Amino acid sequence: MATSFQFTIIGFCLFSLLCFTITFAYVIPRFPSSMLHPALDVNLLSAQNGLYTAKFFTQTLDHFNYNPQSYQTFQQRYLINDTYWGGAKNNAPIFVYMGNEGDIEWFAQNTGFMFETAPYFKALLVFIEHRYYGKSFPFGGNEEVADANTTTVGYMSSTQALADYATLIIDLKNNLSATDSPVVVVGGSYGGMLAAWFRMKYPHVAIGALASSAPILQFLDLVSPYTYTDIITQDYKSESENCYKVIKGSWKQIEDTAQKPGGLEQLRKSFRICKHYISAGALVYWLQMALGSAAMTDYPTPSVFLAPLPAYPVRKMCEAIDNLSAVNETFTKLYAAANIFYNYTGTATCFFLDNTTAPLGGWDWQACTELIMPLGANNEGSMFPPYKWKLRDVEFYCKRVYHIQPRPHWITTEFGGHDIKRVLKRSGSNIIFFNGLRDPWSGGGVLKNISETIVAIVAKEGAHHVDLRFSTTEDPEWLKDIRKREIKIIANWISQYYQDLLNQ
Amino acid sequence: MATSFQFTIIGFCLFSLLCFTITFAYVIPRFPSSMLHPALDVNLLSAQNGLYTAKFFTQTLDHFNYNPQSYQTFQQRYLINDTYWGGAKNNAPIFVYMGNEGDIEWFAQNTGFMFETAPYFKALLVFIEHRYYGKSFPFGGNEEVADANTTTVGYMSSTQALADYATLIIDLKNNLSATDSPVVVVGGSYGGMLAAWFRMKYPHVAIGALASSAPILQFLDLVSPYTYTDIITQDYKSESENCYKVIKGSWKQIEDTAQKPGGLEQLRKSFRICKHYISAGALVYWLQMALGSAAMTDYPTPSVFLAPLPAYPVRKMCEAIDNLSAVNETFTKLYAAANIFYNYTGTATCFFLDNTTAPLGGWDWQACTELIMPLGANNEGSMFPPYKWKLRDVEFYCKRVYHIQPRPHWITTEFGGHDIKRVLKRSGSNIIFFNGLRDPWSGGGVLKNISETIVAIVAKEGAHHVDLRFSTTEDPEWLKDIRKREIKIIANWISQYYQDLLNQ
Repeated sequence: MATSFQFTIIGFCLFSLLCFTITFAYVIPRFPSSMLHPALDVNLLSAQNGLYTAKFFTQTLDHFNYNPQSYQTFQQRYLINDTYWGGAKNNAPIFVYMGNEGDIEWFAQNTGFMFETAPYFKALLVFIEHRYYGKSFPFGGNEEVADANTTTVGYMSSTQALADYATLIIDLKNNLSATDSPVVVVGGSYGGMLAAWFRMKYPHVAIGALASSAPILQFLDLVSPYTYTDIITQDYKSESENCYKVIKGSWKQIEDTAQKPGGLEQLRKSFRICKHYISAGALVYWLQMALGSAAMTDYPTPSVFLAPLPAYPVRKMCEAIDNLSAVNETFTKLYAAANIFYNYTGTATCFFLDNTTAPLGGWDWQACTELIMPLGANNEGSMFPPYKWKLRDVEFYCKRVYHIQPRPHWITTEFGGHDIKRVLKRSGSNIIFFNGLRDPWSGGGVLKNISETIVAIVAKEGAHHVDLRFSTTEDPEWLKDIRKREIKIIANWISQYYQDLLNQ
Repeated sequence: MATSFQFTIIGFCLFSLLCFTITFAYVIPRFPSSMLHPALDVNLLSAQNGLYTAKFFTQTLDHFNYNPQSYQTFQQRYLINDTYWGGAKNNAPIFVYMGNEGDIEWFAQNTGFMFETAPYFKALLVFIEHRYYGKSFPFGGNEEVADANTTTVGYMSSTQALADYATLIIDLKNNLSATDSPVVVVGGSYGGMLAAWFRMKYPHVAIGALASSAPILQFLDLVSPYTYTDIITQDYKSESENCYKVIKGSWKQIEDTAQKPGGLEQLRKSFRICKHYISAGALVYWLQMALGSAAMTDYPTPSVFLAPLPAYPVRKMCEAIDNLSAVNETFTKLYAAANIFYNYTGTATCFFLDNTTAPLGGWDWQACTELIMPLGANNEGSMFPPYKWKLRDVEFYCKRVYHIQPRPHWITTEFGGHDIKRVLKRSGSNIIFFNGLRDPWSGGGVLKNISETIVAIVAKEGAHHVDLRFSTTEDPEWLKDIRKREIKIIANWISQYYQDLLNQ
């Protein structure tokens, strides 16, 4: 066990069983939305209360080929809200959310920015679901059939998704007789990457993109694979040095305990793991998911994005650890921190560790085909055990689990990334890259202005796409200011567009 | 016969047999390179005399999907010439020709501009062959296998071709340790469309594009479908009113003659058609191909692009007609004109009309899947019989012949075209659109400057990508000037790139 443990311990390996049977485990990069399966918050906003209507569009399976299979279609879901729309006659704008790896309703509910700015812009709101997620499965709309094998799931790719969005938007505008309405695309996380790429590749469809927390540089040979874990480490360290040290010291203790007779039972007891399944790898993954997710969603106000969480969850988790400084036992402290992430409402009596191999499809498929995002842990200072990312580990893992060969260079071939400033300052425009520096994904983001129209908005105190969330009365000033800046920039795009329309 | 005749008479229907068995015939838009199968001019330039070396690159069959089939590879041919290259250490530029619908050697031989400017720019020259042409067939490199059915030929598309080019260029630069060498892409006709689209979609791979005679606007709802035949008409009319009238009056005479007993034999005799096959439709196609091709290649110097031709072939064809003004017989005049196009060397004693249905694959496949370019003939003034282009004719034809459903909106969805000035002035840069106004395809070209860096160079006297041809001592001043302007603009791109490289 110890042999493979060192390769899996940084924690993004869902497949704990596998981690202990193969020599190297692939570390899957994960956005929050691919990590958990959150329940939709129907109280906040939903189809039921009329804030959006769900529709379906007949979408082409394969935009880029012309073999018989490519002509198959599927029903792609999108949500629409025309409450505030100024209408086609006024060429009123259309804001389109580029759906990412999950149910589109969940993203709509966590993108209050669009609902709150729609009245000001008189904007039509559209949220398009990404193929192979939510209710948008090809092959009869059946997830099991669509994800059954590489032949059926093989049509899931970011380029197909972008072409879906272009096709749907153009069709929708035609149907609404709104061909001259400017479209602004919005997205967070992987959806933010799609929004940025969409503006680069389809400038004739969208006049601009708000790409929030979009790590478009988290690819091979672009940024250090250590930024992600370094930022998490820094987040905890910034709250308290003790917190950092307790966490850093815990992994070896877990490993040692797990190897002792009765050790797993001791761990089960310490961490309130239900009598279902336990392994050191699964436990470590469970803990590191809590630590990483809290860092990503380290919002200044209470949130229910991944789980019900207090404001500043990292601080709360460190406080839980620090408050137990009189206690010698590390596991008690670590459990207290994990309990804040997994059980803030206090209703859970025990926890289940993940014991399943993920099916084909979903984020794991994307992470094994094209979204190869190197993540490791630094030898120096990381609160996670050192892990040197290697492409061959990814290849080994993906071949073994999915029988698939990753294409690690495809994303940079298709969308660029190398020397991004030099390239985009001469060939692109109208993109906002927002990043919060407490977000571990910000290390792969665009953090400096590229040109007058491709701008980086950076919030030192911000977390993963915090700008897109519904505002609250407790929002700090910096967050209010950032949203104002974004609104101003988008307003300028639209105003310039109308001017261009008049002058043409 | 008469019923369908009116639909086929404008002449681009290769499938004369079919034209008479279906109600509507699809009018296939054709670039010169898709029309004839020219012999390579080995005297001019070839691999044999060492001016380029042919190499092969292992290319991915399907860049956009991840099903098992997509992982197949094929050998893609490219030609390379490093005679003038300043080398990787100097970041010397790389000029890449984006192969179009034919053998890449043929395009290399007709793109003297690259060979002649390479010494000045110290440029490496690369000519990449388009998949499913020349020697670059998937499925074992065998054209018959690759084009056998829609399952195998289905991977032929412009988006796949562009991704091929990006992949090959990046790999080549890595292999040459020339990652910082600027790439300028060049193309004529469909290759020019690919060059322009490449700069729009892959600005991280190419710093600029010389898109010569690239009718990127010859798509649905962008320009009139009549521009193409109107320009041909104008070409002949500009030489002589009599010439225009003789041609315009000939179609009905051919139709009437063909319907008389012994009429086909009379036509065979008049036009020296070999005792092989004749029909009114095939004869009309043969004549109109000569008229259209001469207009496209109405170069100011003798050429061997499509066939050995004199300088200003349209003028020569009209002179042949006008010189016979004393003769009453229209067919004699028309034959004299056709003889200049088909038999300038004077060696042919009779001519064969095309009697074959084109196989799957090649240009006809592209024209039935995505490159749906509306072409018709105006009721008013066209020297061709009126023909109103209808999408349903295309659909009917392509379904019947290829069992394929065209996607007429795909090109504008993927590459834009609507309001091109408004879009590209805000989102693109570094493209030269050259058009010669005697070229019938110029009607679908970009004829006005879009921005300071996306410029239209228009030559009133020019024909189809005349700027890219080898220079001759007889070149007129306007042509010399145009090439100088292009060189200056490209030099500015490269110079700005080096400046950006220094400043980053």
